[in-house]
Amino acid sequence: MGEKINIGNNVFVYPMATTIVGTHVKGKVNFMTVGFISRVNSTPPLIGISIAKCHYTPKGINKNKSFSVNFPSKEMMEVTDYCGFVSGANVDKSGLFDVFYGELDTAPMIAECPLNLECKLVKTLEFPTNYLFIGEIAGAYSEEQYMTDDKPDVVKMEPLVFTMTDNRYWTIGEYAGKVWECGKDFRKG
Amino acid sequence: MGEKINIGNNVFVYPMATTIVGTHVKGKVNFMTVGFISRVNSTPPLIGISIAKCHYTPKGINKNKSFSVNFPSKEMMEVTDYCGFVSGANVDKSGLFDVFYGELDTAPMIAECPLNLECKLVKTLEFPTNYLFIGEIAGAYSEEQYMTDDKPDVVKMEPLVFTMTDNRYWTIGEYAGKVWECGKDFRKG
Repeated sequence: MGEKINIGNNVFVYPMATTIVGTHVKGKVNFMTVGFISRVNSTPPLIGISIAKCHYTPKGINKNKSFSVNFPSKEMMEVTDYCGFVSGANVDKSGLFDVFYGELDTAPMIAECPLNLECKLVKTLEFPTNYLFIGEIAGAYSEEQYMTDDKPDVVKMEPLVFTMTDNRYWTIGEYAGKVWECGKDFRKG
Repeated sequence: MGEKINIGNNVFVYPMATTIVGTHVKGKVNFMTVGFISRVNSTPPLIGISIAKCHYTPKGINKNKSFSVNFPSKEMMEVTDYCGFVSGANVDKSGLFDVFYGELDTAPMIAECPLNLECKLVKTLEFPTNYLFIGEIAGAYSEEQYMTDDKPDVVKMEPLVFTMTDNRYWTIGEYAGKVWECGKDFRKG
């Protein structure tokens, strides 16, 4: 092992999932790319998304109490990136995708994405620069072609991940091992 | 596009980062694998980790007000997995890794991991089954061999991601594009 170097404190999760959050803002469908996302509770299934307060999307979430989370495939990288730097305050993004709805009528989901979640806002937490929106997953949607044994299959979905501050998108690589299994033979050396 | 299928609501982020959280519990160093993790604020850099209340690790975080987040490389998959299903309540995990400290004396970091964060607890949020611990990143540590242009390089770090409920670890794949750039030529078709 080499020498540890202090690299400051503005460090991000390696890597982050690449998602597109869908909302209604001022009566129009809007989409924004989001990488600050995690499940925050097991039962019920709660998801947290963190978005800088200055963005357009929070206006819609706080008003309508719902949002969607869509996982784009790698073929959708350019439009996904576009949704990350163009604001709905200036550009109408409502026509970028085919939109569908589940139970919630203000959580527009992207038909082109292999996996979609519709979330009901249960809490808005306020941090210095960001909101953390806590949503309960009301429904999730995929297609037969993206599933194996009735579960979404990351090989078929081909989602993207990204890293900061080098700002790069990556595909998912090779299968490495089984969770809660591959460590069973581990013994301290 | 095919037909959308409702796949229920217990859906996870695709994929999740694989991290090992370090704490002191009852005076001993302990480690736990965590996948529910995200930055939750930009400035200051706040990170959120969600852990089921029944686990051993929350006792240490709530008492000492600090924790570490360590990103294992794919070579560490077995021991990482082991830390995910063996509880510190039953097994002493303090000798699994070489441990080092930064500014916080109750945030033990794993020397073998390519990237380490030490976090000061700023808030504990309680959800039905999980705590969401909000930590401010006090310091981050890496090694020259894992960095390019003074930034952690995911190609050199070789972190793992995982998916649920199929429960599989994956490596990071190929470089796909530049964030905030590859979408610049995108025009609605």
